[in-house]
Amino acid sequence: MGPVEAACPEQRHTLQRSRKSAQAQTECSPKTEPSKSKDTSMGFLTGEMKEYRNWLKDKPLALQFIDWVLRGTAQVMFVNNPLSGIIILIGLLIQNPWWTIAGGLGTVVSTLTALILSQDRSAIASGLHGYNGMLVGLLMTVFSNKSDYYWWLLLPVTFTAMACPVLSSALNSILSKWDLPVFTLPFNIAVTLYLAATGHYNLFLPTKLVQPVSSVPNITWTEIEVPLLLQAIPTGVGQVYGCDNPWTGGMFLVALFVCSPLMCLHAAIGSVVGMLAALTVATPFKMIYTGLWSYNCVLSCIAIGGMFYALTWQTHLLALVCGGYWGKLTIKSLCYSFLPAALDDMKFMVGVPPGTWAFCLSTLTFLLLTTNSPAIYKLPLSKVTYPEANRIYYLTVKSGEEEKSPSGD
Amino acid sequence: MGPVEAACPEQRHTLQRSRKSAQAQTECSPKTEPSKSKDTSMGFLTGEMKEYRNWLKDKPLALQFIDWVLRGTAQVMFVNNPLSGIIILIGLLIQNPWWTIAGGLGTVVSTLTALILSQDRSAIASGLHGYNGMLVGLLMTVFSNKSDYYWWLLLPVTFTAMACPVLSSALNSILSKWDLPVFTLPFNIAVTLYLAATGHYNLFLPTKLVQPVSSVPNITWTEIEVPLLLQAIPTGVGQVYGCDNPWTGGMFLVALFVCSPLMCLHAAIGSVVGMLAALTVATPFKMIYTGLWSYNCVLSCIAIGGMFYALTWQTHLLALVCGGYWGKLTIKSLCYSFLPAALDDMKFMVGVPPGTWAFCLSTLTFLLLTTNSPAIYKLPLSKVTYPEANRIYYLTVKSGEEEKSPSGD
Amino acid sequence: MGPVEAACPEQRHTLQRSRKSAQAQTECSPKTEPSKSKDTSMGFLTGEMKEYRNWLKDKPLALQFIDWVLRGTAQVMFVNNPLSGIIILIGLLIQNPWWTIAGGLGTVVSTLTALILSQDRSAIASGLHGYNGMLVGLLMTVFSNKSDYYWWLLLPVTFTAMACPVLSSALNSILSKWDLPVFTLPFNIAVTLYLAATGHYNLFLPTKLVQPVSSVPNITWTEIEVPLLLQAIPTGVGQVYGCDNPWTGGMFLVALFVCSPLMCLHAAIGSVVGMLAALTVATPFKMIYTGLWSYNCVLSCIAIGGMFYALTWQTHLLALVCGGYWGKLTIKSLCYSFLPAALDDMKFMVGVPPGTWAFCLSTLTFLLLTTNSPAIYKLPLSKVTYPEANRIYYLTVKSGEEEKSPSGD
Repeated sequence: MGPVEAACPEQRHTLQRSRKSAQAQTECSPKTEPSKSKDTSMGFLTGEMKEYRNWLKDKPLALQFIDWVLRGTAQVMFVNNPLSGIIILIGLLIQNPWWTIAGGLGTVVSTLTALILSQDRSAIASGLHGYNGMLVGLLMTVFSNKSDYYWWLLLPVTFTAMACPVLSSALNSILSKWDLPVFTLPFNIAVTLYLAATGHYNLFLPTKLVQPVSSVPNITWTEIEVPLLLQAIPTGVGQVYGCDNPWTGGMFLVALFVCSPLMCLHAAIGSVVGMLAALTVATPFKMIYTGLWSYNCVLSCIAIGGMFYALTWQTHLLALVCGGYWGKLTIKSLCYSFLPAALDDMKFMVGVPPGTWAFCLSTLTFLLLTTNSPAIYKLPLSKVTYPEANRIYYLTVKSGEEEKSPSGD
Repeated sequence: MGPVEAACPEQRHTLQRSRKSAQAQTECSPKTEPSKSKDTSMGFLTGEMKEYRNWLKDKPLALQFIDWVLRGTAQVMFVNNPLSGIIILIGLLIQNPWWTIAGGLGTVVSTLTALILSQDRSAIASGLHGYNGMLVGLLMTVFSNKSDYYWWLLLPVTFTAMACPVLSSALNSILSKWDLPVFTLPFNIAVTLYLAATGHYNLFLPTKLVQPVSSVPNITWTEIEVPLLLQAIPTGVGQVYGCDNPWTGGMFLVALFVCSPLMCLHAAIGSVVGMLAALTVATPFKMIYTGLWSYNCVLSCIAIGGMFYALTWQTHLLALVCGGYWGKLTIKSLCYSFLPAALDDMKFMVGVPPGTWAFCLSTLTFLLLTTNSPAIYKLPLSKVTYPEANRIYYLTVKSGEEEKSPSGD
Repeated sequence: MGPVEAACPEQRHTLQRSRKSAQAQTECSPKTEPSKSKDTSMGFLTGEMKEYRNWLKDKPLALQFIDWVLRGTAQVMFVNNPLSGIIILIGLLIQNPWWTIAGGLGTVVSTLTALILSQDRSAIASGLHGYNGMLVGLLMTVFSNKSDYYWWLLLPVTFTAMACPVLSSALNSILSKWDLPVFTLPFNIAVTLYLAATGHYNLFLPTKLVQPVSSVPNITWTEIEVPLLLQAIPTGVGQVYGCDNPWTGGMFLVALFVCSPLMCLHAAIGSVVGMLAALTVATPFKMIYTGLWSYNCVLSCIAIGGMFYALTWQTHLLALVCGGYWGKLTIKSLCYSFLPAALDDMKFMVGVPPGTWAFCLSTLTFLLLTTNSPAIYKLPLSKVTYPEANRIYYLTVKSGEEEKSPSGD
């Protein structure tokens, strides 16, 4: 039964649609069959590691749960692969073991909460209820003003991670009307609320102070340092998980490559585009070096370039535009204006870091785009797997349509 | 025809669906029949007082209108019962007669506007177009910076209350796609816009100045006063209507008890949970004593615990979680960050009080939650009446389903 | 084929629904026929100039493109008429040639982008992908802090205008669920993001500084100047395009009159109502003279009074209410509170001008209103053309319904 059955069960972001998707699976299986039979030797480790999952099915729940958590770790970058999850965890350990503990706790807690709330089992098994918890854990430690290993912090991490499956489910009810994924919106909402609720002056859980720009920055183009700029490319990928270590970012790129070389490529392109966009609007260089102007572009590029749209030249271009111009515009405005509003030198108010709002909003906008162009093909959510498989699905659908209407559109 | 016909016509929050609901009524009547025939003696005063309504049907319009306004008064806490409305009015008079006048005016105006705009008659008759006007009238006087009996204030109260049915109808068009009620969103939007538009420095209609937290609060746990904490439980219920008098809150609890003891219980639980949640995040005690940290939890607990979900142990727990953790997080962040943004000691800007945004947003999130668990059963909006009747409806549906599929799921 | 075919093909705001609308066209043609045959002599210039469009159909693409851009210029005020577009362009040249260049560039760029993105051709041909670009171009020059003819500004104008068709398409995907038009929301989003992203302290693209009200304004009613107030009526219409020259506003009124006298009337009424509303809330007179309190009301009045609702006495009244009370409330609160939050005399933050958010939000609310009243008839979006034709369509539908059910409702 191998490849035929394996071709479908991982519906990314199709929370709570067990019955519908069951039909979808039977429909799609004959079409995607040829794609899977190609890479039998490497197929055990790349893509979604379906053979491994099928092998796991009758193993103890504890083993399965570890698989779900690892997939959840990787799902932050749309990767549904436990091996990538392990590589990412190693990368996180290089960055900071304390952050890794909090992130791991977040993933475990939110996956467990989803189980308790009887969420769709196939969504849980794909790690779709874990990735928001992972980000919640990581970012809450990153933005904490206390030193590392302040164990009390794990308490709010647990509570905030518990909110993620609730938010995922609620947002999915809304967004599924337009067949859109929830992306990292649950994480953004939960962490923004948490940071706004506690703030810098909280007695128990103070957060880092975010300072706004209060004067025209001094930029001398001769001071630019190319090695640091190059280093910012992996750092930008690392910032998706809140990490500023370039080696960590490099590990993440490896993790992406294991699942899908196309995703790895788009992540790197996104990082470069984000950096260039930041340069064109005269951002202080120090901020660019930290990769903070790139991570939203990285995510947007992956999402548009092959993940939710079938990869064609047109969508590749869209990915660059979305990642570059829009991402940048959105992040800047969200960062400086809407959220933290006015900070002054009396430090009354505390800003809220931008999270991945920019990525979510700009990518959702692009996914809502409807065109008559056949080259911009948005995949049905239940068919989304990873860029290579998505493209094969798109080509199958397209050739099927051409056969039906040989006289053209 | 008594009980059979009476079981259905009060569709809570089903504005503008006259034809659909007509079908729904005929469908549901045989199921809910047994529930109504139980309490014939007390049934005249408790629940939705259907016998009274049926008796009113051929009475003069003025008498009916009074019934609608009284039901509107009670609908702030989801109570569809004119007797509760009278008790609540008495409670409000204890607090402040001037506020009561403004609140009553708001209810009358918004109900009248709904009639003029030809809104669904059964929704008007259930008071669903009155409760937002009641809150508008109360809160606009509460937040006014002028002394009591400043009669000019009734002019903007009239205008703002007129906006409520429009907002209700518009929001209902959006939210009915997900079968969600509009809650107090029309009130929140109208009053937030009004307060933001006038502000503290308005010539005619200055509002109270809201001060933000500007330093780490000083909290010594030994200073806590238990009697004041206990008093905060009814005060928290009173704050739903903007009242800080514990006796008023007590009257409201009585009003809830008349309609449904389960609602009264959940209101009290919500108030306690909100207080405990506020204590865990180191809120200054003075704020806790005022009940301002409880009223959103009160509403959330009532809504989730039996009103829109059928009451089971699982939803009871959900109600506590929603009321406690989420409500608190949302209110704090909305209160201090998103809305009034930064206030400084130069008092340039004027903050906007939080209203019941926290309740609306957190409860809508929980109502959007979709699970495969049969114990978390969201009632169709047209079937929502009051917790006891809702539970009977749920048990009827459940036993009906079990009969159909005796072999399990 | 003339009038019959001409009656339908201009579906305002029906982006991306080519197949559906094709059906709609064939359905509606017999009904609207009588309306078109009336004004044969003037019909070549008024209304939507359908004869001209049909004549254009087999002309070179360049000529057609000019027609699209001219219609896009006029669509800011819902006018689908190239002659009105020319008159408006003359009005803009009177105001400021530099602004006109930027506005024209925006219209051309956004129309071209829509073509490249394969948007619905009939929507493009009605100028529905041009008007947001026109506003983007105009307002970005209006709010620029650099002197006129700073040619670098055309670069961000081009990029921001390119974003408009993407936003239009995305918003249309959402709003079409409720059969609502996108109005100027794409312009508002794009320009608000741009202004927030660049800000007053940007090195290349500084924007004007927006100052908030920091004290109770001094208003002496005897100082009011009636001639300036009268002049504010055309100025308010001009402010729809960001122009403060009363002659320009006068030209716009002429452009409206060419297409539809009813629209011209409602624009003037809207301007008066906005002014009166501003007077009642004690706005400083200088601000009223600039027309900044009127332009949202102008747009709301046109939209509600005949454009998207069929014109009856009831909707005429609704238009006044929407334009007056709501528009004013919304604009004030959006302007001072939600967006730029707190500005202080240390000039840390930069406010974002209000754009036409107030118009969009209040009009969408009124269009979402659902009533049982037959006199408040919302036209299906695909049938919306201009007030006179809309009213004829409404009367045809109404008489058709009355024939079917002679026994009343």
